[in-house]
Amino acid sequence: MARIVTMGEILMRLSTKNYEKFVQAEDFHICYGGSEANVAVSLANFGQDSVYITKVPDNPIGKSAVASLKKYGVHTEYVAFGGERLGIYYLETGAGLRPSNVIYDRADSAMCHATEQDFDFDKIFQGADWFHFSGITPAISPQAAELTLKAVKAAKKHGLTVSCDLNHRKKLWSIAQARETMPRYMEYVDVCMGGREDAIKMLGFSLNRVNEDDTPNLEAYEQMFREMAEKYSFRYVVSSLRQSHTSSYHEFSGCIFDGKKLYTAPKYEMNPMVDRVGGGDAFAAGIIDGLVEGKSPQEIIDFAVAASVLKHTIPGDANLAVREEVEHFIDGKGRGRVQR
Amino acid sequence: MARIVTMGEILMRLSTKNYEKFVQAEDFHICYGGSEANVAVSLANFGQDSVYITKVPDNPIGKSAVASLKKYGVHTEYVAFGGERLGIYYLETGAGLRPSNVIYDRADSAMCHATEQDFDFDKIFQGADWFHFSGITPAISPQAAELTLKAVKAAKKHGLTVSCDLNHRKKLWSIAQARETMPRYMEYVDVCMGGREDAIKMLGFSLNRVNEDDTPNLEAYEQMFREMAEKYSFRYVVSSLRQSHTSSYHEFSGCIFDGKKLYTAPKYEMNPMVDRVGGGDAFAAGIIDGLVEGKSPQEIIDFAVAASVLKHTIPGDANLAVREEVEHFIDGKGRGRVQR
Amino acid sequence: MARIVTMGEILMRLSTKNYEKFVQAEDFHICYGGSEANVAVSLANFGQDSVYITKVPDNPIGKSAVASLKKYGVHTEYVAFGGERLGIYYLETGAGLRPSNVIYDRADSAMCHATEQDFDFDKIFQGADWFHFSGITPAISPQAAELTLKAVKAAKKHGLTVSCDLNHRKKLWSIAQARETMPRYMEYVDVCMGGREDAIKMLGFSLNRVNEDDTPNLEAYEQMFREMAEKYSFRYVVSSLRQSHTSSYHEFSGCIFDGKKLYTAPKYEMNPMVDRVGGGDAFAAGIIDGLVEGKSPQEIIDFAVAASVLKHTIPGDANLAVREEVEHFIDGKGRGRVQR
Amino acid sequence: MARIVTMGEILMRLSTKNYEKFVQAEDFHICYGGSEANVAVSLANFGQDSVYITKVPDNPIGKSAVASLKKYGVHTEYVAFGGERLGIYYLETGAGLRPSNVIYDRADSAMCHATEQDFDFDKIFQGADWFHFSGITPAISPQAAELTLKAVKAAKKHGLTVSCDLNHRKKLWSIAQARETMPRYMEYVDVCMGGREDAIKMLGFSLNRVNEDDTPNLEAYEQMFREMAEKYSFRYVVSSLRQSHTSSYHEFSGCIFDGKKLYTAPKYEMNPMVDRVGGGDAFAAGIIDGLVEGKSPQEIIDFAVAASVLKHTIPGDANLAVREEVEHFIDGKGRGRVQR
Amino acid sequence: MARIVTMGEILMRLSTKNYEKFVQAEDFHICYGGSEANVAVSLANFGQDSVYITKVPDNPIGKSAVASLKKYGVHTEYVAFGGERLGIYYLETGAGLRPSNVIYDRADSAMCHATEQDFDFDKIFQGADWFHFSGITPAISPQAAELTLKAVKAAKKHGLTVSCDLNHRKKLWSIAQARETMPRYMEYVDVCMGGREDAIKMLGFSLNRVNEDDTPNLEAYEQMFREMAEKYSFRYVVSSLRQSHTSSYHEFSGCIFDGKKLYTAPKYEMNPMVDRVGGGDAFAAGIIDGLVEGKSPQEIIDFAVAASVLKHTIPGDANLAVREEVEHFIDGKGRGRVQR
Amino acid sequence: MARIVTMGEILMRLSTKNYEKFVQAEDFHICYGGSEANVAVSLANFGQDSVYITKVPDNPIGKSAVASLKKYGVHTEYVAFGGERLGIYYLETGAGLRPSNVIYDRADSAMCHATEQDFDFDKIFQGADWFHFSGITPAISPQAAELTLKAVKAAKKHGLTVSCDLNHRKKLWSIAQARETMPRYMEYVDVCMGGREDAIKMLGFSLNRVNEDDTPNLEAYEQMFREMAEKYSFRYVVSSLRQSHTSSYHEFSGCIFDGKKLYTAPKYEMNPMVDRVGGGDAFAAGIIDGLVEGKSPQEIIDFAVAASVLKHTIPGDANLAVREEVEHFIDGKGRGRVQR
Repeated sequence: MARIVTMGEILMRLSTKNYEKFVQAEDFHICYGGSEANVAVSLANFGQDSVYITKVPDNPIGKSAVASLKKYGVHTEYVAFGGERLGIYYLETGAGLRPSNVIYDRADSAMCHATEQDFDFDKIFQGADWFHFSGITPAISPQAAELTLKAVKAAKKHGLTVSCDLNHRKKLWSIAQARETMPRYMEYVDVCMGGREDAIKMLGFSLNRVNEDDTPNLEAYEQMFREMAEKYSFRYVVSSLRQSHTSSYHEFSGCIFDGKKLYTAPKYEMNPMVDRVGGGDAFAAGIIDGLVEGKSPQEIIDFAVAASVLKHTIPGDANLAVREEVEHFIDGKGRGRVQR
Repeated sequence: MARIVTMGEILMRLSTKNYEKFVQAEDFHICYGGSEANVAVSLANFGQDSVYITKVPDNPIGKSAVASLKKYGVHTEYVAFGGERLGIYYLETGAGLRPSNVIYDRADSAMCHATEQDFDFDKIFQGADWFHFSGITPAISPQAAELTLKAVKAAKKHGLTVSCDLNHRKKLWSIAQARETMPRYMEYVDVCMGGREDAIKMLGFSLNRVNEDDTPNLEAYEQMFREMAEKYSFRYVVSSLRQSHTSSYHEFSGCIFDGKKLYTAPKYEMNPMVDRVGGGDAFAAGIIDGLVEGKSPQEIIDFAVAASVLKHTIPGDANLAVREEVEHFIDGKGRGRVQR
Repeated sequence: MARIVTMGEILMRLSTKNYEKFVQAEDFHICYGGSEANVAVSLANFGQDSVYITKVPDNPIGKSAVASLKKYGVHTEYVAFGGERLGIYYLETGAGLRPSNVIYDRADSAMCHATEQDFDFDKIFQGADWFHFSGITPAISPQAAELTLKAVKAAKKHGLTVSCDLNHRKKLWSIAQARETMPRYMEYVDVCMGGREDAIKMLGFSLNRVNEDDTPNLEAYEQMFREMAEKYSFRYVVSSLRQSHTSSYHEFSGCIFDGKKLYTAPKYEMNPMVDRVGGGDAFAAGIIDGLVEGKSPQEIIDFAVAASVLKHTIPGDANLAVREEVEHFIDGKGRGRVQR
Repeated sequence: MARIVTMGEILMRLSTKNYEKFVQAEDFHICYGGSEANVAVSLANFGQDSVYITKVPDNPIGKSAVASLKKYGVHTEYVAFGGERLGIYYLETGAGLRPSNVIYDRADSAMCHATEQDFDFDKIFQGADWFHFSGITPAISPQAAELTLKAVKAAKKHGLTVSCDLNHRKKLWSIAQARETMPRYMEYVDVCMGGREDAIKMLGFSLNRVNEDDTPNLEAYEQMFREMAEKYSFRYVVSSLRQSHTSSYHEFSGCIFDGKKLYTAPKYEMNPMVDRVGGGDAFAAGIIDGLVEGKSPQEIIDFAVAASVLKHTIPGDANLAVREEVEHFIDGKGRGRVQR
Repeated sequence: MARIVTMGEILMRLSTKNYEKFVQAEDFHICYGGSEANVAVSLANFGQDSVYITKVPDNPIGKSAVASLKKYGVHTEYVAFGGERLGIYYLETGAGLRPSNVIYDRADSAMCHATEQDFDFDKIFQGADWFHFSGITPAISPQAAELTLKAVKAAKKHGLTVSCDLNHRKKLWSIAQARETMPRYMEYVDVCMGGREDAIKMLGFSLNRVNEDDTPNLEAYEQMFREMAEKYSFRYVVSSLRQSHTSSYHEFSGCIFDGKKLYTAPKYEMNPMVDRVGGGDAFAAGIIDGLVEGKSPQEIIDFAVAASVLKHTIPGDANLAVREEVEHFIDGKGRGRVQR
Repeated sequence: MARIVTMGEILMRLSTKNYEKFVQAEDFHICYGGSEANVAVSLANFGQDSVYITKVPDNPIGKSAVASLKKYGVHTEYVAFGGERLGIYYLETGAGLRPSNVIYDRADSAMCHATEQDFDFDKIFQGADWFHFSGITPAISPQAAELTLKAVKAAKKHGLTVSCDLNHRKKLWSIAQARETMPRYMEYVDVCMGGREDAIKMLGFSLNRVNEDDTPNLEAYEQMFREMAEKYSFRYVVSSLRQSHTSSYHEFSGCIFDGKKLYTAPKYEMNPMVDRVGGGDAFAAGIIDGLVEGKSPQEIIDFAVAASVLKHTIPGDANLAVREEVEHFIDGKGRGRVQR
């Protein structure tokens, strides 16, 4: 069991039910999530010693967000309380040919204004093995970008392995802003994760992503990952591989580059998906879990992809599948049969 | 912004939830709809000046039906109040290989007994550009058939463009009855709409609808539309093209004939659909919108088909997609990806 | 109309909603079901004179289970009341690539401890035509296995046709236990039903179930059924044929051997399914209905497969489709179209 | 166990949830009820042999209404199928100072057009002990009034005890119409039930209903009941006694006159009530149950009032309390305490 | 029918269901409301020509808020679109002895940053009769306070009657801030409304509000209202009179001072209430309606109090009772009886 | 912050919604609770270091029960996993004059068969301050009674204060069984809690509980508590004081005897209550919190009664009110007013 610290913003997600459009909705389903919080929950469900740090308002809404993490065993004792509000995002869940729509209302959240005074990093990182963050946190505010840098440096100082999920969010910042900020963290990063075009957009790499037949161009991925690893001394570069056909039907796989070679997982047809949000975070958690468990690259990518595939069948932001379920899924037992 | 008047019957739809059969249902989802009301809502959502006329009972149920239209900006000031009851239809929503089942309970509705005394057509049509009705209204009662004729004539007198969605409903009347009634309206109609076999059944045309490979026989459509246009002086004849595989999976496209040539839209795989009811009305609204906006036939059919495809992903009778969503869909951006 | 008696255990099923995992669930959907109870409900829906016997606790929970059967016209006047509890099973409904998960909590149920003192078989079987049971009942307890033997013998004594759905449940007993028990009933059985590998597991036959292209090896089925019929003097051996792709997508057909020849039904693509539980029971009910109605083997298997396919689109354990719906489905009318 | 036949109209009730007004409702709760159907369900719950006759449309809605009765053990084998529609009533459930509002949509229901051809009264009444009807059935149509007369006469011919709940519904007919019709049945009635002012309105009696302090004027009741009994040879005259303070708070009691003396029950404060509809029917069922069980007048009225009080705490039209619950309630055990 | 313009902020209300605490909630009920929006909806329900102006973000959430008003016939064509977000408030609905809890998250809403550039007051007020605002709008931001002043002056310039509901919100500003701002508007106000201690807190008056027996000290109210009317030339001063016993039980009345005399309404026991939010706005709408309809002071206060009492039984922020319901309630017909 | 260990059985509670009877229920609301678990959650909500020990099955149902505690910060690291099943209780929630009904299905639960091998008491009690248990645990099985004794002795050995809530459950054991078992624990108990007649039934004391006017006979309570304290060397004896009028309306208070004097709290009218289950556990948690916080007896009883009163307004078994809410309630601020 490794001690893994994640830091980011947790938001309230308000989503429409039964594929309603916003204007029809009489009630919203509530869940609390955020890229790193989702990673934290998934790691706790895998049995890891998972610690999440963030800042939330000192009111029942902030406390409800924290309670949602505690339920799954995430350690929340270092969460800071204060600030004005919890960020929100509205989710209009798409179906078939209609895309989901996200409306952010997260400006001026408690985490936007958090500073290093809110966290005792020396205490938090003591005895910890790993620190994970994503490119979303620096995007929410300059203060959060600064805090992220402080956290990364402190993690490195304490000898932790550092992973970053690049996670570009175009509604939060421009490519130019991202390119100015993200490279600053890269020297501290050991494991770089980034689906699709994140590395291109945020770090300035280029990639001919798909072959002519629309399949992933794995040679190009390997080449780019090698360049990335060389430039920033990443020990691992990983990426999910997703083909989006409709809101209900994606194909999903992933790959990991260990500095030498690119390993890929089987490709799964996810049809239908139940909840696509958090699929990448489930993948990231699977990667981290594999690395702290000392698995081989092939085992790691197989596990991470399987974990993410299961997440897509579970409502809410976080992957609630436990280790046995993921392993059972990889073994291919009982797919589509009732277990009884 | 054009002023478009639609007239028809609005019904309360009572539908089972979660694919329950009627006998299981402990509650019904309520929505209010009807072919022309659905067209009116969709046009209002596209920003048109949409006016709906009907007759509903002067009680809270009738008023709730009207409120459901006002919510989307449909002008309802000419709705007549009176009569005994609001028509109902029960909808058992199918799934996969089980068809949906509709049970009508609409006899003796307020609209069945409406007469021209209920509507001041001179006032209603003043300043209006377009009048739309469907073949459902004449089917509900002889009085309604008479009222429809009065309305169509008045619309013509005021110089409005008139469109008719043939919309054969076999549970309301026989083919013989339809053939006796519908042709009476056709001389006043400028734009004739009719999916599948409506024109065959209701106007007596014939059509070898599909090729041997089960694809639509477009040559036959063009030929029939040309005959229809000639016989009745239609300016446009349009039809959706639908292949029904299961209750959850249809293929959908459409075509428009402008007196010279048949234009077709791309075909979409709708899998899964969320709510199939009102798909044709969303298509009709797309056609009307395109014509009043002065688009080209190709643009019109592309827009109408896209609008209808989106409708199939939205619960309820009416298309709630706004213009930007339809255009965004046509541009093919973000299909299947969360917009964030 | 034939009088058909079924005997087994009825359970409360507690299932998660909206594809939630157990840990997320704030409420459970309730239904009451069990293999033979499901057969009884389906037969009652087909208009047969359906009698169900079981034992339930004499409290409101036991009575609610019985009321759920009475609603569909099953005769429950011979149900015994007593014992400690109603068995439960928890169902986490899967989706796409995630399997459903069943957790049994049925030990020490009233039916586990039922004895022949609880039932007056002479009275129950008087005037009846058919007795049906499944391999689940003997699996729940030695007492229930004994009771089953008593029932089967009594049924035979009264000249009833006896059918058995082998229905192996690996969470209830081992293959060894099953092989020791099940053959004891076979000499009394006229119609033996058993999907997939039940006959192999429970009666010791062997079957090379699929061809190299993963299609059912019908020659092997016919061969095994012939051996079974010879060994136990079965008049009919039937089996569903199911290919499970995901939790949402199965292919389904079935076959019947009448002592001479194997008859198969068309294969249906069930995508999506709404509720997979009880699919086999719906098939069994279709077989029994066909036999008591005196249909030909081909008609029987066509009807049974169609009935089961419809069941997979209906929430809950039991097939609520009535005869007309099944026949309408076989006729292929209106598949995927709204009936209006 | 007595065989008690009731006849009347069963309706679908569509009620708003959570005290919403009609215009707010996105779904309706469904139940099926009607005065005599409610009596039938309650009697079945008390263990009586309860038979209900009515006519419903031969479609899934009609069959769902019948299934709702079968669930509680009511015998429905004499229900006639045919006609156009099932009557509906909409219920906007009030709270506190806001009254509930009922909107009827029951014209032209199957039962409105039922005739004696639909029922084989000789078969239905054979072996039966009791026939019960209410003043609602004659109010729905002249045909139904005629049918009621036929039924009452046939019941008498077969020697059944006949009870009538006067049940004036001002939205169905005028006092004048009621006065013309109802007395025609009275010569066949043995037990006359009528809360409040029914007897005044429908039979032309007069009653100074309340004392100056707003308590029921029991002397006046006794006097009027004596006159009624004398005029129509009633063996019993009964009435509930209700003081309505708000939609949530009523006081309730009842009285029975056995030709000699008036017996009254304790008065209960019902605060809050859960569902007021069907309170009178629960009372009527309690009276009938007491009479067929041969209880004393005091026991009868105590039981009927207690049964009705419990009904007011149960959602839906019908009293689902079983005999033991009513008796337990009369004994005063555990009121307000959790039974554990 | 008078044209009444109201201006203020509309918020999304997210409320817990079934008396859950925030930490338990898995979903929130949504409604859109705000003091002046609620007044606008109630006036539209009374049949007035009701115009609401505000600023909302140009996204589906802002448009959903506007649609919720259009549904009830409020004119929204002057609503400005722009800014960042729609304000939110979370409502934990109390019960019995537990108070409801409101958490505001409304900083930086679109309306906070609205300016007179967003509204064409000359056009808006043309042909209008009345302008209504509350003390909440100036409290949300200095800009909004400035905008309010502009609006009030413009209304006066166009000869409208101006009403203000003082409505102190202690979570939005301090008493000192309120006292600095609110008197600036008073010279333009004709009708001043203010429950409880608003006038004391916001305008600096003093009031010995209750007698020793906890009843309202009406002499003190009359005295203070007279002083207020004299100081600011108010034509009417009105106040609700509320005694709060628990979250479920209040007593409610109100009074109006017409410059000469204080008129009071009957006092109602509201037990239970369904939704207390918006009770004051319903009262304000009742006052405005009475004044534009030219009723007497006694009629006005009776109507306003009755309207507010009914509001307390209706879920959501706004009073959905129509004029006939309020009048029916005043007549005292049918209280606590089902209307059927 | 004190470390408080509680031990007991946690059950799944399945309760009907909307006051439905069991036979009507289509779904059950789920919560997990048990007397000591409820105490643990309440103490964690008050900010105490709360540890709960129990045994649950090693399956998703058992883990869901544990997750429900973790959500509120209860330490669950010493929970044992194993055994067959989680105990269940069904709750039919009463209303007004209808009592709630509990059906236990808890035989053979994991906790019934737990032994001291499942718990390392030396480790669990190290550094802890307090041990709490109830009379329910010994009632569920002889093994559990034995385990309880082991736990109590171990707690004493480690110097913990021990409290016991007598909590007689007549559906679990007889008075005779209770009297044989419970006194065995009393010598280790410091704080004895027992509402109503627990001490009489379980320890053999006698009490003339109420005065002639149905108010609690406080002299008798003080006398009995003194005898109890003397006999068993209790440092404190406490009891809630409850008068049950209906299922919706109770009066509630409590008293504490500190060896010298009886202190009582104000009496509250709880009308309506939202959820009565767990009211006593909330009271017990309030007592423990007060004692570990070193409050005076009067402060303790005031706090415990206020905490319990708030619990009665919160759905579910456990008190979710935090310390500030209880204190705010005692201060009497804002009762019945919205806090905004």
